[in-house]
Amino acid sequence: MLSWTCPAPLRDRPRVVMGHGGGGALSAELVEQVLLPAFGGREPAALTDSATVELGGARLAFSTDSFVVRPLFFPGGSIGDLAVNGTVNDLAMSGARPAVLSCGLILEEGVELDTVARVARALGAAARAAGVRVVTGDTKVVEAGHGDGVYVNTSGIGLIPAGVDLRPERVVPGDVVVVSGAVGAHGVAIMSERENLRFEVGIESDCAPLGGLVEAMLAVTPDLHVLRDPTRGGLAAALNEIAAGSGTGVVVQERAVPVPPPVAAACAMLGLDPMYVANEGKLVAFVPREHADAVLAAMRAHPRGAEAAIVGEVVADHPGMVVARTGLGGTRVVDLPLGEQLPRIC
Amino acid sequence: MLSWTCPAPLRDRPRVVMGHGGGGALSAELVEQVLLPAFGGREPAALTDSATVELGGARLAFSTDSFVVRPLFFPGGSIGDLAVNGTVNDLAMSGARPAVLSCGLILEEGVELDTVARVARALGAAARAAGVRVVTGDTKVVEAGHGDGVYVNTSGIGLIPAGVDLRPERVVPGDVVVVSGAVGAHGVAIMSERENLRFEVGIESDCAPLGGLVEAMLAVTPDLHVLRDPTRGGLAAALNEIAAGSGTGVVVQERAVPVPPPVAAACAMLGLDPMYVANEGKLVAFVPREHADAVLAAMRAHPRGAEAAIVGEVVADHPGMVVARTGLGGTRVVDLPLGEQLPRIC
Repeated sequence: MLSWTCPAPLRDRPRVVMGHGGGGALSAELVEQVLLPAFGGREPAALTDSATVELGGARLAFSTDSFVVRPLFFPGGSIGDLAVNGTVNDLAMSGARPAVLSCGLILEEGVELDTVARVARALGAAARAAGVRVVTGDTKVVEAGHGDGVYVNTSGIGLIPAGVDLRPERVVPGDVVVVSGAVGAHGVAIMSERENLRFEVGIESDCAPLGGLVEAMLAVTPDLHVLRDPTRGGLAAALNEIAAGSGTGVVVQERAVPVPPPVAAACAMLGLDPMYVANEGKLVAFVPREHADAVLAAMRAHPRGAEAAIVGEVVADHPGMVVARTGLGGTRVVDLPLGEQLPRIC
Repeated sequence: MLSWTCPAPLRDRPRVVMGHGGGGALSAELVEQVLLPAFGGREPAALTDSATVELGGARLAFSTDSFVVRPLFFPGGSIGDLAVNGTVNDLAMSGARPAVLSCGLILEEGVELDTVARVARALGAAARAAGVRVVTGDTKVVEAGHGDGVYVNTSGIGLIPAGVDLRPERVVPGDVVVVSGAVGAHGVAIMSERENLRFEVGIESDCAPLGGLVEAMLAVTPDLHVLRDPTRGGLAAALNEIAAGSGTGVVVQERAVPVPPPVAAACAMLGLDPMYVANEGKLVAFVPREHADAVLAAMRAHPRGAEAAIVGEVVADHPGMVVARTGLGGTRVVDLPLGEQLPRIC
């Protein structure tokens, strides 16, 4: 059902392909085989979206993301919203309370200043909504034909509360897998805008900050095991990363994964699997079984988690592998995507 | 003597021009009139290269920079070196000890993976030389024709020691202006490589980390008033920013500003003023008069400050303005550059 933009043999080619930016296996190869050895580190933190740093007695989360989404404005958001929520959510997935952001712009010569202003206003509004301050920035300009209007990098710092320790290594068989809501909307919204598709029911990006939801979950117990926001590569990539990082197996009940009917219909038409479509306002949590009901209740009581659902569990079998039980009672392997279904999704 | 890439009337045009990325008056206008109002803040920190953030009891410096230099490799360095030293130096100018970096890559489809690896290795080596760790990263890919090989964003965090408080507002008449070494090499090295010019004496970029030099200066006294690295816009832009931020006047003895003879010769040939040419391994310090001799001695004892020199002083006259006393005994105003002499210098 998936149509990759880069078939497997590209892996051996000597040039960068779009899939190297897709958050799947090609991205992981680039990081593991090229970047990490060059940077001289083999810290697990460098593999994830956010690093934990001890500095001056404070335990900080530090994260960076560049945004190259096309188009700049789409149903439910813009590159400015993504730039805030993407980085804020990476910090929140460390259990941190996001505090400050930087904003680095790469503008293409000739782009209208009004467009830059619209992006900046969206970014400012999203920062206020997420409760973070943009405190430092940088702007570069490149010649026409060497950019695409506006690229945005945001980096962020958050403070990790005492007792919170979220990482795949803490996942154990028996953990319950919870998703905070319906998946697939962001990717379908971008694609429909780009391809000028119109569905009967408009589909908007779910782009939203998750700091408040994470705080509500940690108020139940600081002992959550891992959180991840399923962006590029979708829920499939997030679950695979956690399975690989924890050395456990993950079993997902396919029918339990909430997908809005318009998104499911659009995916069927476009040949996409909702499990692989990017989200920008959802999280997946691996929760100790004894806390699962209470955490789920806290999530459902929060506006960003009203549709939260238990979608699976962690098993000792098939370590590193994600398996879906299908609606018909069958089983299929949910692979790490190789490249990406939709380039420049964020 | 200056040849601007953007004449004044462009200021009123509705589109982004190269000069908006030049670190001069057009850059400042973009920040002050478009970005800061949109971000909803009017914090002075947002105007400078580095913000000071209090978090979990720690006093942090936080900085970001995107690098779009062309070509990627040049005499004396590469975009990887710049990406480390640019951000490390911004942190050091806050008096912070640089600790960690993020690395966000925007790769152009089709660029050779070997090129990416070379950039990454240079970045890793520069980080080790500067004593910082690259702890988190992100990679995006854009289609051919929407990038230029490799763009790099780095953001960084450093810890500001107790008692250090560097900002233009602390500058007072009587302060001594010290430059850490000869100016102009980086810009001329980039331009000569780009234009394929060959001078009798090869000119290499001065790209280098300044954290150690700043530590040596602060060991003399934590009571320095302000530090700035004169990158885009050169010494002229750095001095103008400090004059404007402090509401004082700055007088520079033109003959006291060290310029290597090959750089001076190249500038004369190219029609550039060394005062406006970018540096990537130099700083300018505003030092209370009573500490000036001791700070200068400490700088000269450090490898990165061997050619340090007193180049001027702060006066109560002409607040916000920088004036140069010329070799012939005359006086000229050293304006904030409008756009930039050399696009994509860093």
